Amino acid sequence: MVNYIIEVIIKKGCLEMSNNCLVAQSGGPTPIINASLQGVIEAALKNEEIDNIYGARFGINGVMDEMICDLTEEIKEDIALLKNTPGSILGSCRYKLNNLDIDKSDYEQIFKIFKKYDINYFFYIGGNDSMDTVAKLNQYAEFKDIDLTVMGIPKTIDNDLLITDHSPGFGSAAKYIATSVMETTLDSRVYQRKNVHLIEVMGRHAGWLAAASALAGETGLQTPDLIYFPEIPFSTDKFVDDLKKKAEKKDNIIVVVSEGIKDEDGNYISAGKSSQHDQFGHKQMGGAARSLVPYIKEYVYDRVKVIEFNVLQRAANHVASKVDTEEAYACGSQAVKYAVQGSASGKAVVIKRVSNHPYQSKIELAEVDKIANREKKFPREWINKKGNHVTKEALEYLRPLIQGEINNKTANGLPCYSNIEAAVTVKPKSEL
Amino acid sequence: MVNYIIEVIIKKGCLEMSNNCLVAQSGGPTPIINASLQGVIEAALKNEEIDNIYGARFGINGVMDEMICDLTEEIKEDIALLKNTPGSILGSCRYKLNNLDIDKSDYEQIFKIFKKYDINYFFYIGGNDSMDTVAKLNQYAEFKDIDLTVMGIPKTIDNDLLITDHSPGFGSAAKYIATSVMETTLDSRVYQRKNVHLIEVMGRHAGWLAAASALAGETGLQTPDLIYFPEIPFSTDKFVDDLKKKAEKKDNIIVVVSEGIKDEDGNYISAGKSSQHDQFGHKQMGGAARSLVPYIKEYVYDRVKVIEFNVLQRAANHVASKVDTEEAYACGSQAVKYAVQGSASGKAVVIKRVSNHPYQSKIELAEVDKIANREKKFPREWINKKGNHVTKEALEYLRPLIQGEINNKTANGLPCYSNIEAAVTVKPKSEL
Repeated sequence: MVNYIIEVIIKKGCLEMSNNCLVAQSGGPTPIINASLQGVIEAALKNEEIDNIYGARFGINGVMDEMICDLTEEIKEDIALLKNTPGSILGSCRYKLNNLDIDKSDYEQIFKIFKKYDINYFFYIGGNDSMDTVAKLNQYAEFKDIDLTVMGIPKTIDNDLLITDHSPGFGSAAKYIATSVMETTLDSRVYQRKNVHLIEVMGRHAGWLAAASALAGETGLQTPDLIYFPEIPFSTDKFVDDLKKKAEKKDNIIVVVSEGIKDEDGNYISAGKSSQHDQFGHKQMGGAARSLVPYIKEYVYDRVKVIEFNVLQRAANHVASKVDTEEAYACGSQAVKYAVQGSASGKAVVIKRVSNHPYQSKIELAEVDKIANREKKFPREWINKKGNHVTKEALEYLRPLIQGEINNKTANGLPCYSNIEAAVTVKPKSEL
Repeated sequence: MVNYIIEVIIKKGCLEMSNNCLVAQSGGPTPIINASLQGVIEAALKNEEIDNIYGARFGINGVMDEMICDLTEEIKEDIALLKNTPGSILGSCRYKLNNLDIDKSDYEQIFKIFKKYDINYFFYIGGNDSMDTVAKLNQYAEFKDIDLTVMGIPKTIDNDLLITDHSPGFGSAAKYIATSVMETTLDSRVYQRKNVHLIEVMGRHAGWLAAASALAGETGLQTPDLIYFPEIPFSTDKFVDDLKKKAEKKDNIIVVVSEGIKDEDGNYISAGKSSQHDQFGHKQMGGAARSLVPYIKEYVYDRVKVIEFNVLQRAANHVASKVDTEEAYACGSQAVKYAVQGSASGKAVVIKRVSNHPYQSKIELAEVDKIANREKKFPREWINKKGNHVTKEALEYLRPLIQGEINNKTANGLPCYSNIEAAVTVKPKSEL
């Protein structure tokens, strides 16, 4: 491997310019984020315009730190497993570039690395924060008149990206949530005891994942009973009232709450967590459901179980949606196609829904500026009047996205996940 | 339905004795507890010795309260789905019968119901507490010289039943745990941040489920790093020391703790929960992992995530083990076979491991007295010397039990679980 890279540098890097691409992942993982990576790699491998395919570990931070690995060679054996391997296999980061007019030092370092590796195409797989990085790098390239195509490939389980009909990763997380809500519901009905099961799902500012739990109710199970969204100001009085009404008719109540539920003043319900922020200024979530337990014990039923789906909802590839996996892959491969065609820099691939019956979608391009730093809320008109469940229109939107099973390759009873992390070694900088 | 039952009573119940069986479920659910139920029903349907198949809702409590449903007719449509439906579909209870010499009133009520429904065979699907019920009912039948075959069918995700090589339900819970530990591990490695992921698994007094997490490490992922068992007195000093040693080599540490870890004096580590007991005197668990967070933040890494697999480990049928499902089914169907052959009252079906390569098992009979009220601990010799991981022998034992996928029937992207709870209605007592 080391020999090969030195050879490439002698043959191409030093004597003639090669045409290379670099791909990186950013933000929180999704169950199928590596399907987009596989899409990029396979499309780039097939494309004669592209010589070498590099990956940066840990997102844009890894670019700056020159944590570069060669994907052309090393990944071939494992590539078929990538699609169904959870966790951003190249590693990720949450790093916001300074505005160009404030500080250019990050940009200078990044573009030094781009130049060193003859990078013509940079693909960044990420959410709305990562699209900010794409927009800024494109801005800098234009400003410096550098021939570089920077593109965004969307991913987020939160489904809060604008323009795209939905985000790769959301369908699989939604399928995990709906499946696990079904299973929790069946478990909750076993005893002759009145109880409330409080399920907490992710979704910092948008209730898409909470809404997806309603798909469990399309199976005849009549669950969940109540859903609470970040979009609707949360009142504990109303919450207790909602529960009391359910308790008149049901012994086993299933409630889904988004981690991001907030009171009327915009304070997160998740008590005691308000002081922690990440670098983007987002509050670190967790504990919303737990903080509601005393109200239920006091006013409704004494038996309360809190179930946090936690990281599994963004990592459980074993129950990934086939539709979602295929779209994530297509986003990666189509990004390469668009990039090579030209005029795609500063753009992101997005999914357009063509029809619901049968479900069809296509991949288009959109200005990344329109996606970066913005959030698509779960629409108010898809929440019922009482603010505690979804409408039929919401289910119509959600249903196609969880369709199909991927039937993971397994060995010894467990999924075969890519071991690329062990295979992809970052080259010592001196060697490259 | 109602007409049919009245007809049966006229034709058989009043004019001639019918030969009926009754089945019930007890204790905590497993992902495949209904496979044993399906085994009983299908074997009983085929068996000419058995006329009607009744089910009692909510275990022995439902027998006493005459919450009886007719499974012969109502269940037929859904029966094929039972095998892969989580949650004890008939409902469950945790109820301990008084000793015969103390109070016979429960027995008198139960046998009144048995007589009313002409029950010749009673099958009780449950764990070691439920086997106590089987033993006592058999004792009463012998005492009163009543012609009744009472049999136990084992189930528990805890795998703590004696005599049987392993318990139906354990393999599926083990598979869920190993799969989810793999996925959590891949998720944990995404960022360049040092962190500890603390995963809490069930297992009140026995570390079988905690041990099963080690199967995740057979996939090349090198996870989990540390495992803590109820069988080894837990010392926070040693815990911090173990973690510090791992932290010298690893940035992302995965720790699995059993909910039942106890200090040297036998006090549960799960703080604040010590005052709650169930009817059998078991302490209500939960929170062991959470209570360890401050130690990690103080002495190891500042970033700690607690992940509780919670009820999903006993309910996630979508990732059930095929071996486990088939054995659970066989336990049900073989129990019927043994019952009809005779001399099986007061016995339980148990699994005997015949070979590991290839894995083979068979179903035998064992005295229920030897199983009731006892616990099979995870063997000390299968825990490493440091008390924080398992040996190769443990893995050799565990590996076969998670093999095979069931590939659930799905519709609209979600598992097709039996809707028997809606279908099986308890008849008003006057009708029967």
